[in-house]
Amino acid sequence: MAEHGPVVGEMSEAAVLQAILGRLGPSPVPVGPGDDAAVLDAGDGRIVATVDTLVHGPDFRLAWTSGYDLGWKAAAVNLADVAAMGARPTALLVALALPAGTALAFVTAVADGLRDACAALAPGCTVAGGDLTVSQTLTVAVTALGVLDGAAPVLRSGARAGDVVALAGDAGVAARGLQILFDRFRDGAGRPVPVDAQQLSADDAHAVAQQLRPAPHIHLGPVAARAGATAMMDVSDGLALDASRLAAASAVTLDLHTAALGDDPALALSGGEDHALLATFPSDAVLPEGFRPIGRVRAAGDDRLSVDGSPYTGHTGWDPYRDGGTAGG
Amino acid sequence: MAEHGPVVGEMSEAAVLQAILGRLGPSPVPVGPGDDAAVLDAGDGRIVATVDTLVHGPDFRLAWTSGYDLGWKAAAVNLADVAAMGARPTALLVALALPAGTALAFVTAVADGLRDACAALAPGCTVAGGDLTVSQTLTVAVTALGVLDGAAPVLRSGARAGDVVALAGDAGVAARGLQILFDRFRDGAGRPVPVDAQQLSADDAHAVAQQLRPAPHIHLGPVAARAGATAMMDVSDGLALDASRLAAASAVTLDLHTAALGDDPALALSGGEDHALLATFPSDAVLPEGFRPIGRVRAAGDDRLSVDGSPYTGHTGWDPYRDGGTAGG
Repeated sequence: MAEHGPVVGEMSEAAVLQAILGRLGPSPVPVGPGDDAAVLDAGDGRIVATVDTLVHGPDFRLAWTSGYDLGWKAAAVNLADVAAMGARPTALLVALALPAGTALAFVTAVADGLRDACAALAPGCTVAGGDLTVSQTLTVAVTALGVLDGAAPVLRSGARAGDVVALAGDAGVAARGLQILFDRFRDGAGRPVPVDAQQLSADDAHAVAQQLRPAPHIHLGPVAARAGATAMMDVSDGLALDASRLAAASAVTLDLHTAALGDDPALALSGGEDHALLATFPSDAVLPEGFRPIGRVRAAGDDRLSVDGSPYTGHTGWDPYRDGGTAGG
Repeated sequence: MAEHGPVVGEMSEAAVLQAILGRLGPSPVPVGPGDDAAVLDAGDGRIVATVDTLVHGPDFRLAWTSGYDLGWKAAAVNLADVAAMGARPTALLVALALPAGTALAFVTAVADGLRDACAALAPGCTVAGGDLTVSQTLTVAVTALGVLDGAAPVLRSGARAGDVVALAGDAGVAARGLQILFDRFRDGAGRPVPVDAQQLSADDAHAVAQQLRPAPHIHLGPVAARAGATAMMDVSDGLALDASRLAAASAVTLDLHTAALGDDPALALSGGEDHALLATFPSDAVLPEGFRPIGRVRAAGDDRLSVDGSPYTGHTGWDPYRDGGTAGG
């Protein structure tokens, strides 16, 4: 980062906050940033709430991820969890923990990314509150809240034998993007170096963008709920692992069809971070536009997941405590 | 910490999560932990939401703070922000970022502290969701949600000239506790060492406990709202600084009376982290039990805050970006 201008350690909390709020623009909620807590409309008397954290090192590297990308991704991954309940996101609360040497320009870029991801992926959703602290490790914890507009939440546990398994969004593209970053944008000592877009084909650039700035189909969450989805979840840790989780919650077996998983089914099954929506629908349902069939729900067998009728034996995706490093860069 | 047993870096995320959920017990919310997001009742169609983060180094030191204390305090400070809106806390979402070497026993103690603080301070409030990540810096970000039960939220901006300024809870006690820790429980190199309770008088032990395990009067938030509080806030950064903020939001001047601020008014004004409720009430209101008058609201003068009628010139409390260090310990 060759950032110029003030760093947050030279500023008061109020001044940093003011700079952030200036980028976010007005929030339409009943009580927005500035009081002890926000007050939000909860529509039909229920609220959907989730939290997800991005930590420097295991979740992003600053050589690859700009402040804007970080804000965008922190919003997108949480919006996807709200959508996966069949809900419409309405507000984010953002807890930023910043090293004292963080450039103010980086922080305002995070705010820009949060704002733009909401505007692009979940119009009407805004940052309604947050918290600023100092930390040795740059950390962004985002809470996303949403409303169900009268619908029942779509849980992981509702899949039934005979249902169609469907996916909205990519599988494996973000993982290919991460692989490109690791393979081609590190120095001799293995440290991340900035991405040179000139070196990337259009396909590779798309994969890298999906890793750094994912754009899940948030609006399809409520659409799937209205179309009768019996179960749904956000695919964050890889299709195989997350499909197994849905199958376990529903006490069924999911059979996925490699013919529906693109050119590299192994990568589609193992690669995480695309934040596609995985849903099951009754066999006679018309799949909403944006969803494509990728398999079928079976009665519970010996395995939670099968592929083309055979038990899945490949890599099952990302587990931060098993796979993660905490190195920076 | 002389912890024994497994550390989280040797375990799967699912196993760590299961150990935590085992300590929390069942959550009465419509959809609790285990899906993409929680679903919560929002009573009258509005929800109050806040987030606050505790970071190892600036916010706590592990030599002084047990896992139980950390969970308790992370809950308490967020419950206080909900109460300060006049709301009743109903659910917490907890984002834990843990170094891989963190003992599982420490993590389950955090869960115990979260559970017990909710039970003691805000019965009916439970942990409804959360997130686990790895980080080099131990960080606990808690989102607290609450309901207004039909009442209007009590903002910082409603104080009017003539109102009584009232406080529920201590002022300066937690700061004295922190001073005792810094003065008496560090080694020759300035590093924190565990607290030896034998060395503490009952008064000092109380101050240290208030710093490590604060017990704000959460139930008095809704009580104050029903009693007609015109403005309210949680005193986290010191009475002088937070009273100035309330005065600025309300475009008034607050005059505080040292006679009502105990034996050490200077410490009561500057010391943060007691999480008392600062509220203003119409002059003819009967103060609810638990609140005591500490001053009067005046029309806006040259200063936001005066003490016994004179401009306040003392230390104005804690600002993490001005005062904070990020050293561990």
